[in-house]
Amino acid sequence: MYTIAVDAMGGDNAPQAVVAGCIEAINEYKDIKLIICGPKEKIKELLGKDYDRIEIVDAQDVITNHDQPTMAIRRKSESSLVKAMELVKSGAAQGLVCAGSTGAVLAGGIFKVGRIRGIERPALAPLLPTVQGKPVMLIDCGANVDCKPQYLTNFALMGTAYMRSVIGVKEPKVALLNIGAEDEKGNELTKAAYPLLKEMTNINFIGNMEARDVLSGDADVLVCDGFAGNVLLKNTEGLASSLMSMMKVEFTSDFRSKIGALLLKPAFKRFKKRMDYTEYGGAPLLGVNGVIIKGHGSSNARAFSRAILQARNAIESNLVGDIVSSIEKM
Amino acid sequence: MYTIAVDAMGGDNAPQAVVAGCIEAINEYKDIKLIICGPKEKIKELLGKDYDRIEIVDAQDVITNHDQPTMAIRRKSESSLVKAMELVKSGAAQGLVCAGSTGAVLAGGIFKVGRIRGIERPALAPLLPTVQGKPVMLIDCGANVDCKPQYLTNFALMGTAYMRSVIGVKEPKVALLNIGAEDEKGNELTKAAYPLLKEMTNINFIGNMEARDVLSGDADVLVCDGFAGNVLLKNTEGLASSLMSMMKVEFTSDFRSKIGALLLKPAFKRFKKRMDYTEYGGAPLLGVNGVIIKGHGSSNARAFSRAILQARNAIESNLVGDIVSSIEKM
Repeated sequence: MYTIAVDAMGGDNAPQAVVAGCIEAINEYKDIKLIICGPKEKIKELLGKDYDRIEIVDAQDVITNHDQPTMAIRRKSESSLVKAMELVKSGAAQGLVCAGSTGAVLAGGIFKVGRIRGIERPALAPLLPTVQGKPVMLIDCGANVDCKPQYLTNFALMGTAYMRSVIGVKEPKVALLNIGAEDEKGNELTKAAYPLLKEMTNINFIGNMEARDVLSGDADVLVCDGFAGNVLLKNTEGLASSLMSMMKVEFTSDFRSKIGALLLKPAFKRFKKRMDYTEYGGAPLLGVNGVIIKGHGSSNARAFSRAILQARNAIESNLVGDIVSSIEKM
Repeated sequence: MYTIAVDAMGGDNAPQAVVAGCIEAINEYKDIKLIICGPKEKIKELLGKDYDRIEIVDAQDVITNHDQPTMAIRRKSESSLVKAMELVKSGAAQGLVCAGSTGAVLAGGIFKVGRIRGIERPALAPLLPTVQGKPVMLIDCGANVDCKPQYLTNFALMGTAYMRSVIGVKEPKVALLNIGAEDEKGNELTKAAYPLLKEMTNINFIGNMEARDVLSGDADVLVCDGFAGNVLLKNTEGLASSLMSMMKVEFTSDFRSKIGALLLKPAFKRFKKRMDYTEYGGAPLLGVNGVIIKGHGSSNARAFSRAILQARNAIESNLVGDIVSSIEKM
């Protein structure tokens, strides 16, 4: 049985979507137990009945996007996120899912749960769907906006561990996000990181990758600083929806197109499902002493249930242990 | 009459597409004169006949993507690009179009044509189509991969000048590409640049913009360092084509979808035209003493003709003069 703490109060649709996602997850995955942290009465009401494998830990306070993250983690001891973090810290839970403030999840991961020894900087690493139908991990996506070259080697190692342990890729291909494919291309950071990555014997480094090839599926792990990664991630999300809305204008502009669009509805649905990044869950915070999954702020029940599955899989595959032993071998 | 030099040997489809683009441009725009730089015999053959407003300057050498840019500009004096740059330098041409090596165009612009006094770093600034049907200028996109905050204020000024003079936007809205909308967000560079941009009285600074909103049309000029800009630009290009190919798979998977796709063909064509970034021409290299347009490497004849029109418009609107006087006013 895998025990996962869930912050009921994180995300745009909390706590309704969170609780609905918990119920969905409990029904789908029989080897998990959930501890929902949040206002007890409200959660009880949303649950509607008692569940064998759902426990509630009462938490009356909330950390919002407006709180200064580190301060909030230190002071808001009665918040749902801090209570969830403490469950992981104490070992009462092995994993945690939260769709709230990214900064607070990061601060909580580092200050409450703690870094893995040897990892300088934990990283947020979402998975994106690719043309080849398998995901690519983008690491880092916003936890470390100013990076030293050394951090990028940590990211490569942690990304490799995740893709190997949790996703089951045999020798994950690691690429460095850069502005050209040639070895000598890049800014100060990537030029310094390239030779370090090339030297590493415990990753499968395939060289530079340009931003146009991110969704090609040619890499399993794409290493970058958190600023560039965040730009890439948000551009990808935003572009998909901008393109869709531009398309919609054309598709509804005349009768012929409207009929065509109607016939293509199921195909569009399949396409959207393929592009749905919540299918892979949320973004794991890698490099801390526990499984922490940061859900997308706009997560619905389905996204929460997928993020819970992702936490379960990471616990089952001993992700943290894999990162620890990778670091020790370096 | 506006005189524009064209490098016949730049781009994947050179010289065929370049010469075809020149003919198209001459036929469409009656107030331009073109000086094509390249191997005389070959160009004559491609032209097929004499044109009143096309001149050829013989150049037997070529600068390729494999040449070290600065070295090539210094040593390859017989190359088509260097000859074209010299025409701008001498005033024989007021503008230049080249779809060849970005590094060489940049080096040529700086060392042959020369920087505008007061501009620390010229920048490459492509235009992207937005949801609102008007373009947004992304500045810088690869000329300066490591930036000081001061550079970004230069970019803001030059982008404003371009959008005002050439595109005719009254008070171009300038945003800073960042990882959050709040003032205090960002990496070291954007945190330092933000207050500098806010202080500027000759631009209309609207604050931070996240990468998800780039194509929203809410900003006319998006300022960023060349690494992030390049990531954004290439991701946008690559994503549009990745999404299309993923869609195609779904659209051809069954009979119903195939019929729907057939009916939607004209709508898709309109959509593609709307998304076609070559409609706006190439990326101007701003901050040098002449109009220099860097065409996309994969430019076809139409893209060359649009880039020539763009150079014409920049000359007509006195872009360089506008940048000079903006800098002087600072």
